[in-house]
Amino acid sequence: MRDAQNPSGMTENMKYGYFDNANREFVITRPDTPYPWINYLGAESFFSILSNTCGGYSFYKDARLRRITRYRYNGVPSDNGGKYFYIHDDGEIWSPGWKPVKAGLDSYECRHGLGYTKIRSSKNGLEAELSFFVPLGKHAELQKVVLKNTSSHKKSFKLFSFVEFALWNALDDMTNFQRNLSIGEVEIKGSAIYHKTEFRERRNHYAFYSVNEPIDGFDTDREQFLGRYNGFDAPQVVANGQSENSRAHGWSPIASHMKTIQLSPGASKELVFILGYVEVEEGSKWESPGVINKQPAEELMQAYQSTRQVDEAFDELRQYWNSLLSKYQVKSGDNKLDTMINIWNPYQCMVTYNMSRSASFFESGIGRGMGFRDSNQDLIGFVHMVPALARQRILDLASTQLEDGGAWHQYQPLTKRGNADIGGNFNDDPLWLILSVTNYIKETGDFGILDEKVPFNNDESNTASLFEHLSRSFSFTLNNLGPHGLPLIGRADWNDCLNLNCFSVVPDEPFQTTENKTEGSKAESVMIAGMFVLFGRDYVELCREIGLEKIAEEAASQIRTMEKAILQYGWDGEWFLRAYDYDGNKIGSSENREGKIFIESQGFCSMAGIGLKEGKVRTALDAVKKYLDTPYGLVLNNPPYTRYYPELGEISTYPPGYKENASIFCHNNPWIMIGETVAGNGDQAFEYYRKICPAYLQEIQELHRTEPYVYSQMIAGKDAVIPGEAKNSWLTGAAAWNYYAVSRYILGIRPEYQGLRVDPCLPASLDEIRISRVFRGATYHIHIRNGDRGKGVKSIRLDGKPFEKDLVPLFPKGTRHEIIIELH
Amino acid sequence: MRDAQNPSGMTENMKYGYFDNANREFVITRPDTPYPWINYLGAESFFSILSNTCGGYSFYKDARLRRITRYRYNGVPSDNGGKYFYIHDDGEIWSPGWKPVKAGLDSYECRHGLGYTKIRSSKNGLEAELSFFVPLGKHAELQKVVLKNTSSHKKSFKLFSFVEFALWNALDDMTNFQRNLSIGEVEIKGSAIYHKTEFRERRNHYAFYSVNEPIDGFDTDREQFLGRYNGFDAPQVVANGQSENSRAHGWSPIASHMKTIQLSPGASKELVFILGYVEVEEGSKWESPGVINKQPAEELMQAYQSTRQVDEAFDELRQYWNSLLSKYQVKSGDNKLDTMINIWNPYQCMVTYNMSRSASFFESGIGRGMGFRDSNQDLIGFVHMVPALARQRILDLASTQLEDGGAWHQYQPLTKRGNADIGGNFNDDPLWLILSVTNYIKETGDFGILDEKVPFNNDESNTASLFEHLSRSFSFTLNNLGPHGLPLIGRADWNDCLNLNCFSVVPDEPFQTTENKTEGSKAESVMIAGMFVLFGRDYVELCREIGLEKIAEEAASQIRTMEKAILQYGWDGEWFLRAYDYDGNKIGSSENREGKIFIESQGFCSMAGIGLKEGKVRTALDAVKKYLDTPYGLVLNNPPYTRYYPELGEISTYPPGYKENASIFCHNNPWIMIGETVAGNGDQAFEYYRKICPAYLQEIQELHRTEPYVYSQMIAGKDAVIPGEAKNSWLTGAAAWNYYAVSRYILGIRPEYQGLRVDPCLPASLDEIRISRVFRGATYHIHIRNGDRGKGVKSIRLDGKPFEKDLVPLFPKGTRHEIIIELH
Repeated sequence: MRDAQNPSGMTENMKYGYFDNANREFVITRPDTPYPWINYLGAESFFSILSNTCGGYSFYKDARLRRITRYRYNGVPSDNGGKYFYIHDDGEIWSPGWKPVKAGLDSYECRHGLGYTKIRSSKNGLEAELSFFVPLGKHAELQKVVLKNTSSHKKSFKLFSFVEFALWNALDDMTNFQRNLSIGEVEIKGSAIYHKTEFRERRNHYAFYSVNEPIDGFDTDREQFLGRYNGFDAPQVVANGQSENSRAHGWSPIASHMKTIQLSPGASKELVFILGYVEVEEGSKWESPGVINKQPAEELMQAYQSTRQVDEAFDELRQYWNSLLSKYQVKSGDNKLDTMINIWNPYQCMVTYNMSRSASFFESGIGRGMGFRDSNQDLIGFVHMVPALARQRILDLASTQLEDGGAWHQYQPLTKRGNADIGGNFNDDPLWLILSVTNYIKETGDFGILDEKVPFNNDESNTASLFEHLSRSFSFTLNNLGPHGLPLIGRADWNDCLNLNCFSVVPDEPFQTTENKTEGSKAESVMIAGMFVLFGRDYVELCREIGLEKIAEEAASQIRTMEKAILQYGWDGEWFLRAYDYDGNKIGSSENREGKIFIESQGFCSMAGIGLKEGKVRTALDAVKKYLDTPYGLVLNNPPYTRYYPELGEISTYPPGYKENASIFCHNNPWIMIGETVAGNGDQAFEYYRKICPAYLQEIQELHRTEPYVYSQMIAGKDAVIPGEAKNSWLTGAAAWNYYAVSRYILGIRPEYQGLRVDPCLPASLDEIRISRVFRGATYHIHIRNGDRGKGVKSIRLDGKPFEKDLVPLFPKGTRHEIIIELH
Repeated sequence: MRDAQNPSGMTENMKYGYFDNANREFVITRPDTPYPWINYLGAESFFSILSNTCGGYSFYKDARLRRITRYRYNGVPSDNGGKYFYIHDDGEIWSPGWKPVKAGLDSYECRHGLGYTKIRSSKNGLEAELSFFVPLGKHAELQKVVLKNTSSHKKSFKLFSFVEFALWNALDDMTNFQRNLSIGEVEIKGSAIYHKTEFRERRNHYAFYSVNEPIDGFDTDREQFLGRYNGFDAPQVVANGQSENSRAHGWSPIASHMKTIQLSPGASKELVFILGYVEVEEGSKWESPGVINKQPAEELMQAYQSTRQVDEAFDELRQYWNSLLSKYQVKSGDNKLDTMINIWNPYQCMVTYNMSRSASFFESGIGRGMGFRDSNQDLIGFVHMVPALARQRILDLASTQLEDGGAWHQYQPLTKRGNADIGGNFNDDPLWLILSVTNYIKETGDFGILDEKVPFNNDESNTASLFEHLSRSFSFTLNNLGPHGLPLIGRADWNDCLNLNCFSVVPDEPFQTTENKTEGSKAESVMIAGMFVLFGRDYVELCREIGLEKIAEEAASQIRTMEKAILQYGWDGEWFLRAYDYDGNKIGSSENREGKIFIESQGFCSMAGIGLKEGKVRTALDAVKKYLDTPYGLVLNNPPYTRYYPELGEISTYPPGYKENASIFCHNNPWIMIGETVAGNGDQAFEYYRKICPAYLQEIQELHRTEPYVYSQMIAGKDAVIPGEAKNSWLTGAAAWNYYAVSRYILGIRPEYQGLRVDPCLPASLDEIRISRVFRGATYHIHIRNGDRGKGVKSIRLDGKPFEKDLVPLFPKGTRHEIIIELH
């Protein structure tokens, strides 16, 4: 037995890792983390997921349809499949990434940076450094390998590389073996191994894995490389110290290079491996019959023939990320806060832009398209970094909207068409478009986007302006009201698992797609009502901004009506109701035995300040504190459901404390944080922020399990067996909403149409904060001095002079300005 | 490194296994077989797939929707996941099934029998015998474990069991981790571990894993059992020699027992483990809130509390199989032939009845329903063993037929409804129903089935007699004729991959479901034409038998017209054409550059004797010999397609020599064997039979790779890189058709409506053959004496007296009769 608990000989109490903010890296100091801790490589079309022990896979654009390498979800051993290297050094075999061999290492360090990962380890006087990244503008993962002899004697050893190819369609690849085991094909030319399965037929793409020097052997057949019954931990080729030069025909194509390396003491060797993806024109697929056209691949190899070229590409990537992050930088005196705002939270927001919810170590990359609701929310986390991409995303999303304002719930990233299999009728969906568009325009000033002609349901013959799409989003709610004048919930609102019209009693029926019993339904959502008020006001503000006063007035009146309905029918006495069910019974009420109070309606109604003057926001937020707060964050509902309720749907299928049934959903905690800022309570807002913010959880890495540098979708709630244990890291709206809450409402820097609002709501623990914000091309250096209340601007100085208005104005591009703010 | 090549210390040249016909077992003598060699347990509702090293999984009825334990297809290490046992004996750890630990064993033997598997191995003076089977009438797998101390000293060791539960829906289980890692639930009571995930909601079923004695520990959480980064080969609990008594909440629920055992020299210990599946009524799901009703499980445990009870159930199972196999037994003087006919070929036919094409080590159990075409063909292999089940299968199949005679291509086993997602329009489908029904009636004499009211398209308000369904099957071909009077092919005929109306140029489009361009299509199938003649004559014969002379006459005339069309437009000069394509161009013609000749039309036209008198059958069969024959069997087409032809579809997507593109398809070789018997060439028929028959391939087990006791769907053809390498074992029409060819046409024992036809066509190598055939309840002892020609009956003696007619008559149930036949 190998000692999995302590493979590197480190002491038992050492943490798993720490932030290195100077390098914008998270440094993992031992390989056996509580869960594989991953990073994302790639920012455009070619993506890789890479764990701290070299597990993961690559794909081109679509994780389901263009899977380049194979990975085994739910693998045993865990995290099974990756970009592996093996070193055979004088009979001893080890992997620089610890896995798959898991031999004890003399040292180990993994640095996850922005779009790259470096793993450095050593054993027996040999040091290895692996650097992985996807260069900008190319469809390839580069792997720079540096091997250094740190011993006092000459070393001769063998290096083996390894990737396993997926047969492109990831779902088919894991199910259709009666076909797939007969179709694998490769070519080998020099030091490059080409994976060309199905290129002979309808595919115009292949992959390759190359190294920039002559090799001493190769393998392309998995079984010949591993041996018939071995795992990745013990390939027979590596044990034998000699490649088989195997050529795959069917079964499982892989690519492995072998290189014998000799190093004098102190000497080192650098190699560049490339995992590339190539598309060719239909007419130029073949060099000769049966031989693929390798020219584009060879050009790619030529571009990274030397380590100098690789290093240049790496520098370019770092500059790219530095440029993105420069838009909002903070020095707060709280290093953890700065770490999240300056580096990891916006980084995670960019990953959610790239991935939506498709591929992580919890999302298998085959299940989901782009969510309408998800993507509109994600946008508020990255719009200031990549406004042009945000613009395109908005137009893609709006193009799937239906004529009545409703929306397909998902669209497919390759076709950008609404997914009819998933369907629509999630009645909150349309309103999120108002959130994203108004945020986009406030950030950019690009009112022109409102005039873009955007199709309904992707039908180019039926278009309207984007503004008209927004109007239909607004009207959709009004056209779908229930008996109390509150919005009908439809299939579900933000809480996909609160299925009030489904009534499923048959196993295997998906709650999100099974036919709903909407006819005669009285199921209304107080959350959508709150959304309508909150985002409806954004719509009104936009209308006024573009001079549509009459429309604005009418909308404002409809919003006031909705507010009244909420106060009359959506208030339970101590908090806001969550919903009415199909039969008109209350959900989230003190009358209920379970699920008495829900977070979502408290969040939206408090953000919208509904009943603020009457004290209802404070009362509701106090109820949140009383019933939903835990040491690890706010649970979604309380008490949890202990049995299945067909009239409530999926929410009651989860064991108490998990997922939508009373876990800490990191996505909606920020709604309460914002609500607390609306109510003027910066201490409470910041306390909620810290409870779920990864940088503050370093002490409980072992309990938390998932990556301590990004948000997870959920943390097990107080009713769970292990409260505080997180799941579903990376691809979650928690990234955007937490960033939004802390940057715009706690620190209070908010773009508006005509300037920058500076309206912090700070905890007492923060004295002075310095923020650098690039807005419409100008740079604002903002210095905030906290006061006793932490809320309310006492004075503003702009470029050294007192400034009486409350909105910092727009400035010409390229200019720099100093703002000093004193709070009450 | 472990030595995977020689783990048991056996000599390198030893075979992997041999037939033990006395026990009706195949004995595997070393664990590292060229591929995992599996067996099927279960004959009713509860099924397990089990490899010779304990890999595999269990399911209830439907391998996709009720997966009980988890398995990893395409696993690394291969065959990853199973019913594992671990022994910790004085610090040394081993598995009786070799895997997963793969420790060297002192002895190893696996016996795959009929519905059971026994593995016996030993190490360090401890012998273990594992017996696995599913008892009749119960939903459980029994595992009898016998441990014997063969050393001369007292032994104290620990036994650990292990299964991993699947979360029921196998597809969801491997893709939906954002949900599934939060829902796992178990209960532990005494020595039974209950898996109850989703029982709290819509499921009314759970699983359990128990042992019939008190235990010294248990585990139900995979990670705590294995350790965070270990494989199944090195669980930390086993290494530590102590269970953690872990309770799973989410993540991956497992069940493992631990038992400390002490044995004096020569002593042994017997344990009974049960993996059970339980369904309870909706109203009696719970014993108390949150505690499942365990009564049915406890009754099951009680039924197998003692090894005596287990042994009785085992005897009952053996009797069941002996009874099934007794219907047709042969002594031919050729031991290999007897092995296949008496044991393994009918056994495989029963497995295809149970599984259709759903679950094997090549079929992942989630992809397919029951095929209309497949199931009708499978029936001819098992109808004599389980006629009542065959009857129900026929009615289920016919119920999915459409009003116009067409058929859904697949139906779902749980609902028995046609699968609209897969669709219909495979124009050969309806004709196979005539094959199955006429075979059923000839076997049973049950003409009453023809009067059964059977719905169209599962619509109970729209029914017709089964005979009417057959008439529509017959008419369907006539209503779908092309320009040459040959049948239009529709989506495809038997060769699913010859897609003449598809023209797909987009990757990921499934050829079998993508929209066809049928409008204006001239694509005709000569194979369906041959089928129409062959099975049409069966229809005519049936009509005459039930007195519908006029219908018979008209049908016979239509068949003659079809024969003429085949001879006029379906003959290429040296062989039968395969088809005409969409534009009316020839497929399978000497005019083609590739794919000049196909096996299917030669098979059906020779079986039907089309052009027999004119010598065309002989000519076509000679062409088959010349162009398609190889040392490993007959390839499907020749030359193979070397590039993709959109007008031909999937067939040209395969590399040459694989699958439908010129592999040896074991399913259609028997058509040629039967054709050779029609042409009177027993030597050639038998040579073809032997080439692909597993029992004759023992010398090439290593090359063949798949199980040497059952047919595989395909063997790589002469144009493949490794000719002779087989794939897709077990679930293939090859089982039924080879059995049909050898038992009915080479040995020549054929049930007819009014008696038993004895019409052998033998090779010279077989001198005397004795067959025992139970037919309509009477037992026929048939003694065949071969002659010079091997074909044509010279004389018959019945019960000691000369018999002048050529059809042996029906006899009363329970009677026994002697028939002696001399051949010319």
